[in-house]
Amino acid sequence: MKRQIYLDNSATTKPCKSAVKYMLDSMENEWGNPSSLHILGMNAQIGVDECRACVAKALHANAQEIYFTGSGTEANNTAILGAAQIGKKRGKRIVTTAVEHPSVLNTVKRLGEQGFETVFLKVEKNGVVSEEELRKAITADTVLVSMMLVNNELGAVQPIKKAAEIIKQVNAPALLHCDAVQAFGKMPVSVKDLGVDLLTASGHKIHGPKGIGFLYVRKAVHIPALITGGGQEKGLRSGTEAVPLIRGLFGAMTELGDIANRLEKQKKLWQYAVQKLKATGFVEINSAEDVLPYILNISVLGYRSEILLHFLERENIYVSSGSACAKGEGSYVLRECGFDRKRIDSALRISFCCENTEQDIDALVQALIVATQKLRKAN
Amino acid sequence: MKRQIYLDNSATTKPCKSAVKYMLDSMENEWGNPSSLHILGMNAQIGVDECRACVAKALHANAQEIYFTGSGTEANNTAILGAAQIGKKRGKRIVTTAVEHPSVLNTVKRLGEQGFETVFLKVEKNGVVSEEELRKAITADTVLVSMMLVNNELGAVQPIKKAAEIIKQVNAPALLHCDAVQAFGKMPVSVKDLGVDLLTASGHKIHGPKGIGFLYVRKAVHIPALITGGGQEKGLRSGTEAVPLIRGLFGAMTELGDIANRLEKQKKLWQYAVQKLKATGFVEINSAEDVLPYILNISVLGYRSEILLHFLERENIYVSSGSACAKGEGSYVLRECGFDRKRIDSALRISFCCENTEQDIDALVQALIVATQKLRKAN
Repeated sequence: MKRQIYLDNSATTKPCKSAVKYMLDSMENEWGNPSSLHILGMNAQIGVDECRACVAKALHANAQEIYFTGSGTEANNTAILGAAQIGKKRGKRIVTTAVEHPSVLNTVKRLGEQGFETVFLKVEKNGVVSEEELRKAITADTVLVSMMLVNNELGAVQPIKKAAEIIKQVNAPALLHCDAVQAFGKMPVSVKDLGVDLLTASGHKIHGPKGIGFLYVRKAVHIPALITGGGQEKGLRSGTEAVPLIRGLFGAMTELGDIANRLEKQKKLWQYAVQKLKATGFVEINSAEDVLPYILNISVLGYRSEILLHFLERENIYVSSGSACAKGEGSYVLRECGFDRKRIDSALRISFCCENTEQDIDALVQALIVATQKLRKAN
Repeated sequence: MKRQIYLDNSATTKPCKSAVKYMLDSMENEWGNPSSLHILGMNAQIGVDECRACVAKALHANAQEIYFTGSGTEANNTAILGAAQIGKKRGKRIVTTAVEHPSVLNTVKRLGEQGFETVFLKVEKNGVVSEEELRKAITADTVLVSMMLVNNELGAVQPIKKAAEIIKQVNAPALLHCDAVQAFGKMPVSVKDLGVDLLTASGHKIHGPKGIGFLYVRKAVHIPALITGGGQEKGLRSGTEAVPLIRGLFGAMTELGDIANRLEKQKKLWQYAVQKLKATGFVEINSAEDVLPYILNISVLGYRSEILLHFLERENIYVSSGSACAKGEGSYVLRECGFDRKRIDSALRISFCCENTEQDIDALVQALIVATQKLRKAN
């Protein structure tokens, strides 16, 4: 069996050693219920709060502004539904983009069905919302702007700071929510710098476990709970804290290291990949040059994504067609960017982690060359 | 340090060896995203579905009727809010009991604020709702009846089958939801036998990990999602599946063994505990004789629960005062049963797992004797 080359890190990542170690320790030694009044409960609570402080520090936030959830999706739902709930007295307009993750798109659509006026901003060819579109959309009766920091299919970085500025300028009552699931741990993310009120991230995208996400809620902001019950997470998210997952997230964070430095190195690997893929003569690059270099979207015209994906899989190389969440449907993100059907149907997403190397890229390129020789063109 | 005697298993349980083993294996070998189209995704999906089938079998349900959630609390929220949502065209009445877990109580209260007519049934001294009360409450415009199978503080077993019968008899459009968090894995729980439409349980109460629960939804019933997004769990609960937790739950289920047989043994241990505690002359038994014998609620009159709890903790014996979720407040469950303030303020909950022994009970009784000798009476 050939060495496994995993280039689908935006779908999920392999839990790192520290994540596994902390989870194991939690289950064997700190398995009390944080709500219990005895020392076993307190020990579990200490572990939870250590992770909370660690997340807060990474975001330039305060620990009391971090709430753990069961996923990034749940955090997005909590933020969006909560912001709409408190905003509805002051306005009905919710602004998001047409290229958000389904957990934002479908949740905003739900609000549309409930009577909110919802705006799904168009993006430019590079996947980015223009300042002009933002200015047109964000009005004085806008109660929520939800925009992802990094697009999960292209890597496109959205102008969150610009949105924050415009909200201030037009004096909108809007809360600014940012889905930072694809950004957190890969680029510096400061809630202060971005000017957001709400921000979401997920554990399993940064080599932590699946089943844990978190939501930053700016101190002065009070949104209602999505899940009610015993009042855990200061009442915002009831349910016994998923202590082993929270400890696993903490473990993953201890291995993040210098994010900015790692980003520099990754930029070089990304450029290497672009250059090698272009040199084949048959690969189109869909990601713009200034995307977050952990994601590279390409098309191999004439070959259907799924066919290529399964061919690569036989070589023990793993990529995705579109996002993992879309399960085989044509990418709405690429469609919104104006790519044609041929380009969309042959798209592959390559997504990196710090363990990927130039050798991985070479193997991918070589496999694609063999694929195009062996496979019959689809059209 | 004395041997640890853990008698707080209704708050949480220690993850069993199989739970830990399966989680480890999942994180090291099956860490793909189930939504990924390649083999790593498929392997993860197979692991998820193996657990789903296992849960379904235990409940006498079909695998497609089981949905994983981030907690029992989330499952209760999904069931109750979902049932209310589809029921509101046919009626406004929701019936529950005054002794439910906060994740049911507070969620039904939310619905009350939204215009539903909510009924919180009184219980008898033994913590059980009478048939008479049920008959009075369940009317032809009742859209939801939510009743726990086993009370978390007393162990009282509620007449779920009776509720199902009455719903049929009065031809109510009501769905019947059962919070079986304290019952699942401890007594035979058959959704067919109980006649429920929706049923909730949790992993960490049966020596599985924290952060995983599940909801049974009868095939013909279609409730809307609480959390929307990528459409996982057939659209009922979006968010990347918490594969390691689901595998951990599966591991825990492989160790459940013969539940009915274990219950017989546990009944004897419970009776032993009652007899030994009564023999001290200073312990009142709050649980009725016919409770599920994994829970025993007592009072040591004149000594505050928290003081006793911390005294026992110094002896490495762990119990709880009320439920773990109430964090030190006087028990509303005991109040609803008509116990007086003195009895409530001195209540302790002893909750068992299959590893507890007569020696554990002897140590507890001995420690309580020493406690009452050393501690000053509170009143």
